[in-house]
Amino acid sequence: MNAVGLVAFALVGAAKAIREEFDLFGIGVVGLSMAFAGGATRDVLVGRIPLVLRSPSEVALALVGVGVAIGLSAVLASPDDHPVTLVSDAIGLAAFATTGAIVATEAGVSAFGVVAIATINAVGGGAFADVLLDRAPFILFDDFYATCALLGGVTYWGATTAGTAAGTAVLVSAGVTVGTRLVAVARGWQLPTAQWLHRRGR
Amino acid sequence: MNAVGLVAFALVGAAKAIREEFDLFGIGVVGLSMAFAGGATRDVLVGRIPLVLRSPSEVALALVGVGVAIGLSAVLASPDDHPVTLVSDAIGLAAFATTGAIVATEAGVSAFGVVAIATINAVGGGAFADVLLDRAPFILFDDFYATCALLGGVTYWGATTAGTAAGTAVLVSAGVTVGTRLVAVARGWQLPTAQWLHRRGR
Amino acid sequence: MNAVGLVAFALVGAAKAIREEFDLFGIGVVGLSMAFAGGATRDVLVGRIPLVLRSPSEVALALVGVGVAIGLSAVLASPDDHPVTLVSDAIGLAAFATTGAIVATEAGVSAFGVVAIATINAVGGGAFADVLLDRAPFILFDDFYATCALLGGVTYWGATTAGTAAGTAVLVSAGVTVGTRLVAVARGWQLPTAQWLHRRGR
Repeated sequence: MNAVGLVAFALVGAAKAIREEFDLFGIGVVGLSMAFAGGATRDVLVGRIPLVLRSPSEVALALVGVGVAIGLSAVLASPDDHPVTLVSDAIGLAAFATTGAIVATEAGVSAFGVVAIATINAVGGGAFADVLLDRAPFILFDDFYATCALLGGVTYWGATTAGTAAGTAVLVSAGVTVGTRLVAVARGWQLPTAQWLHRRGR
Repeated sequence: MNAVGLVAFALVGAAKAIREEFDLFGIGVVGLSMAFAGGATRDVLVGRIPLVLRSPSEVALALVGVGVAIGLSAVLASPDDHPVTLVSDAIGLAAFATTGAIVATEAGVSAFGVVAIATINAVGGGAFADVLLDRAPFILFDDFYATCALLGGVTYWGATTAGTAAGTAVLVSAGVTVGTRLVAVARGWQLPTAQWLHRRGR
Repeated sequence: MNAVGLVAFALVGAAKAIREEFDLFGIGVVGLSMAFAGGATRDVLVGRIPLVLRSPSEVALALVGVGVAIGLSAVLASPDDHPVTLVSDAIGLAAFATTGAIVATEAGVSAFGVVAIATINAVGGGAFADVLLDRAPFILFDDFYATCALLGGVTYWGATTAGTAAGTAVLVSAGVTVGTRLVAVARGWQLPTAQWLHRRGR
């Protein structure tokens, strides 16, 4: 699951950079940032040297995603909107959120810390990539995306706190993230804004 | 003081996100970032796991600020410009600058390090929130705001270096920050730009 | 070399902030960020307290660069495009890339980690300054700049892996960075975009 996520995340980031006509260095940086900035932030927050700086195989997978994005950009306008990409991205979201929840739990942080690190691990790379592209991170105003990772983090925390075996907690947490994400894509879910809430309240 | 600051900072950040029509997740992230990103950066710089990931009560206070911002946004266009908010924000600025100076001093950094970490602790959250909102941080070109935190940091360093008791240094440092900030708001102080300096020099 | 780089980087960052009419605090923050954010990120990634918070002499050098930028802005529209600045900046790029490669090698990271940290050390400050100025980092789409630091990091890694003495590896790595950068400026080198590659492929 982690491998699928690395390829998908790097592909989505690189495709965004290609549309902005960044050069090859920029395409590589945005693709790798999308794949690794969330996990690197997680590791820095819990006081570890980021895994990406120690694990060569992870980098190779992300570079595959960047290469695929460059190749596909010749034939597809938006390879990051393709159904295969959307499903792979949902799998990556679940893998990254669950990994974040595991690392945070091992580091002994609070319940908020587990959920925050799970969410940052899953969506921090995309938010960082958007900042590099000089945009507000899309996760803050659009789509039902980061909320799926947050729900996965809450599930993991709830399951482990309730004494569930670690393997089961991972499966349930990843399932909640992938499931809510795929339903959200299919049904076009959006979170409300404050303006919408106030209109409804009248 | 710290509690007042957490509520005020989260309220100001959330109010900015509401004006940009971010969704509820985005409003929460910008509000919590405004309250915690400065302190988390401070902790990462001195090699500690951020306090916000370990202390549930701090998160609860910031969520109160986010909730107040959402509620007030139905009746007030800019709850972040209300006099109560401005005074609470000045108190938070002082509390955060002083906390940063204390943590930096304990970590054994240089005089520059103490002043830099005090300033980052106080205004880093607001700068990070502005980046999430896709703006240049307002502290870099507008208002007399970050300078108050910087002066508080210099005061704390000066007082402790001169052998002042820790409790007194905290009071004096916080007093300098709140005092300069409230005078700056009342009088509309601005720092000069280079262009202004050159015009004056002619 | 490091001293030349600190002055040049701070000057370039401050000159950009002056053009945006930031106030004196903003000019100082962008100048110091350009000089130090890359090295601070390097130190945080390998788990050290940033050197800039412990070494007063480095801060003094960067403040000289900020002061020169403010002074020159009265007589020169773009002191950051002056040939003296371009050469000093190339020297700084080489010094910072090589320092990053040394620190990363000591921290025991992978080959990718050495190259990534060398590049972040050299160009992270400029990228961070561009984000503060609310732009996409210029290194991602313009010029042949970050690639020189990346080549310097690859050279250092290759030389030390091949058993070259540390002093020689430093010289060769710095030489590759400065050399490629000066040739790139002289010849106007650019990295291709994906769009350019696809047009060529037809």
